[in-house]
Amino acid sequence: MATDHSDQAVAALTALARERVDHRFKGLPPSAEGLTVGELAAERRSLFTGGFTTPVLALSAEALEHNLVAMERYSAAHGLAFAPHGKTSMAPQLFERQLAHGAWGITAAVPTQVRAYRAFGIQRIFLANEVVDATALHWLAAELDADPDFHFIAYVDSVRGVELMDAALREAGARRPVDVVVELGGGEGARTGVRTEAECRAVADAVGATGTLRLVGMAGYEAEVPKADGERVRAWLRRLTALTAEFDAAGRFEGVDEVVVSAGGSAWFDAVADVLAELPTLSRPVLKLLRSGAYVSHDDGQYRNLTPFNRIPEEGELHPAFRLWAQVVSRPEPGQAFLNAGKRDAAYDLHLPEPQLIRSARDGATRPATGLSITALSDQHAWVRIADGAELEVGDWVALGLSHPCTSFDKWQLIPVAEADGTVTDYIRTFF
Amino acid sequence: MATDHSDQAVAALTALARERVDHRFKGLPPSAEGLTVGELAAERRSLFTGGFTTPVLALSAEALEHNLVAMERYSAAHGLAFAPHGKTSMAPQLFERQLAHGAWGITAAVPTQVRAYRAFGIQRIFLANEVVDATALHWLAAELDADPDFHFIAYVDSVRGVELMDAALREAGARRPVDVVVELGGGEGARTGVRTEAECRAVADAVGATGTLRLVGMAGYEAEVPKADGERVRAWLRRLTALTAEFDAAGRFEGVDEVVVSAGGSAWFDAVADVLAELPTLSRPVLKLLRSGAYVSHDDGQYRNLTPFNRIPEEGELHPAFRLWAQVVSRPEPGQAFLNAGKRDAAYDLHLPEPQLIRSARDGATRPATGLSITALSDQHAWVRIADGAELEVGDWVALGLSHPCTSFDKWQLIPVAEADGTVTDYIRTFF
Repeated sequence: MATDHSDQAVAALTALARERVDHRFKGLPPSAEGLTVGELAAERRSLFTGGFTTPVLALSAEALEHNLVAMERYSAAHGLAFAPHGKTSMAPQLFERQLAHGAWGITAAVPTQVRAYRAFGIQRIFLANEVVDATALHWLAAELDADPDFHFIAYVDSVRGVELMDAALREAGARRPVDVVVELGGGEGARTGVRTEAECRAVADAVGATGTLRLVGMAGYEAEVPKADGERVRAWLRRLTALTAEFDAAGRFEGVDEVVVSAGGSAWFDAVADVLAELPTLSRPVLKLLRSGAYVSHDDGQYRNLTPFNRIPEEGELHPAFRLWAQVVSRPEPGQAFLNAGKRDAAYDLHLPEPQLIRSARDGATRPATGLSITALSDQHAWVRIADGAELEVGDWVALGLSHPCTSFDKWQLIPVAEADGTVTDYIRTFF
Repeated sequence: MATDHSDQAVAALTALARERVDHRFKGLPPSAEGLTVGELAAERRSLFTGGFTTPVLALSAEALEHNLVAMERYSAAHGLAFAPHGKTSMAPQLFERQLAHGAWGITAAVPTQVRAYRAFGIQRIFLANEVVDATALHWLAAELDADPDFHFIAYVDSVRGVELMDAALREAGARRPVDVVVELGGGEGARTGVRTEAECRAVADAVGATGTLRLVGMAGYEAEVPKADGERVRAWLRRLTALTAEFDAAGRFEGVDEVVVSAGGSAWFDAVADVLAELPTLSRPVLKLLRSGAYVSHDDGQYRNLTPFNRIPEEGELHPAFRLWAQVVSRPEPGQAFLNAGKRDAAYDLHLPEPQLIRSARDGATRPATGLSITALSDQHAWVRIADGAELEVGDWVALGLSHPCTSFDKWQLIPVAEADGTVTDYIRTFF
């Protein structure tokens, strides 16, 4: 079956390269209309002189590769399996590279993402949410029954949720049980997840009473611990590991090949590594599953501030891979300019974009964007404040760093991957 | 050529109906995989029992039709031509309906949108921005030269911009001049647009000195008048009409068939209608072009608050057309629930979504969402606060009203159009 998966994935990825470049993909060269994505990539055009239009988002080839290697090394060094969160990029080409860099599988947030992953042959999927949608569960049951090698794990976080899952899976006539982990919430005021140990036991009991679900472990998301800091995150992780050990000792994992314990976004994987390393030996092998997603592109804001590598620089670093190139279309007052990129093009939920470089329309020379700042985004414009003495002309291109990968990827359906000199070597297709 | 346009538009729209339904379109029934969009529409499935998955955004068939008629009537009653802003929906099927409801053409914000419109045969396009991107201008010149019936108008807002446009159009060997209107900015601190009458004259002079551009009128966007209120907006509109009349008297529009004067989003079209009606008779016919875009879906927030119909109810009203159905996936604390829709699914830039209805997972009965409010959105979750006494269970569906059409459409690529009873009669494809 591994061959089947591989064949399907290769076929689906190959089909991406055969897709035609046209008006659907903003920023791409009008002169490339009708070429396939693969043919355009083979032309190795320049992002600056190859006919691209503004605004255009680019990914750094070097930063992507660096980040893939950095988390592969980090996971391996700490004995962690890795299921990077795919909702960040929704980019099957990046999933393949993550898998090639040692990832166990890919994490999803909602069933529709699982469906997209399956279309690209992803064989191991961790769904970090409870699924109570009967239609989605019917689809899932059919998918599991059709492919014995499809390894799928989802959250459960309530007895009612377990009842709904069980009812839908029975209705679907599911032949394979669905593997589930109880989600331990980050405490009162946290996002999803069971709040107390007693409730976790009740949910586990409910799972045990079904024939359609199989309890395989415990999981949660440490970044939603209220007022998260190193101490609170570690305290919560110790609750997670203690419950895992308790459930194991209580025989709740009888019949499973390995126990799953999972946590870890892109802000606390150092704490996750530390505490999961403390897990005592259980009755069977343990899959310690890290799920960071934002690392793949990293950013120039949220995750620049939050990456654990700021605390453990000796263990690695991540490089921001996104650069949004926009053009000055108006310069109506001395201290004010407007770029032709806005909410349609850049993340704006956590921080505004950060001007980094100016590429002069006169001679193509590049200089630091000193004195420029973005003060607001309209739908299709960025508001740029210009400090006294800074220069910026209509027609100049401005490179913006972005904050929050998840709301950057989702604004672009085909993203050029450019080398440091601007040569575009590949195009990443997203599916949002 | 009208036939050519019609043929091209029909062919492109027909191709949309032939597109295959698959994993790319979130919310759509997994059981519809492989059907064409047209085949699925013909099945007239129920949004609630037809196999759709959550979250799923739906447009009200009745509200859409109502809004199309309302603005057709309003424009006609006030002698306004109408070029609805297409950046709102980026949906060619809606463009066709807008044109069928009397629209003169479609407005765009950036050249990449113009390119998408042309792929669907749109013959009259108003680009409410300056374009200084040489690549985009090269494409535009070729498009204009290839189709004598393509009517295109763009903003100019600086002498430097005019110089860049002229240089690019010369380089392209453009045979037809590009029609431009000078953008009058809304005042100091406004968005794009020339700030003073003297500067407008200088920009018009610069246009006149080129052989590649032709001045056809004046335009701007009244909603960006700083501290906009009825008085300030009307004062700015009077500057716009006065400059138009002055330019006409000065012979700046010699040789054009009609003078263009354009303003009007979805918040101040009453003021636009009033002041454009005051325009004196000019030397030639005047195209008074309104550009409202948000009206097509209207909303349950920003434009519910801002629509001019609140001031002139005797002239019409708009109905909110969006409803996002999400499902309760977690109910971890007494006053707290989580839905499986988040920033990936709902607009969040101006207001948070508004819970309106609950559809019980137990019996499908619908009741008002009294006592529910959204307090935050994560990427893939909505945080729901539940007042004392309100009931909500894991598995229930919650209907959310949205605020800001532009950031709602752009999160969905294929949107079911549902009648009041839930019957899905059509699917709207978007191109962002």
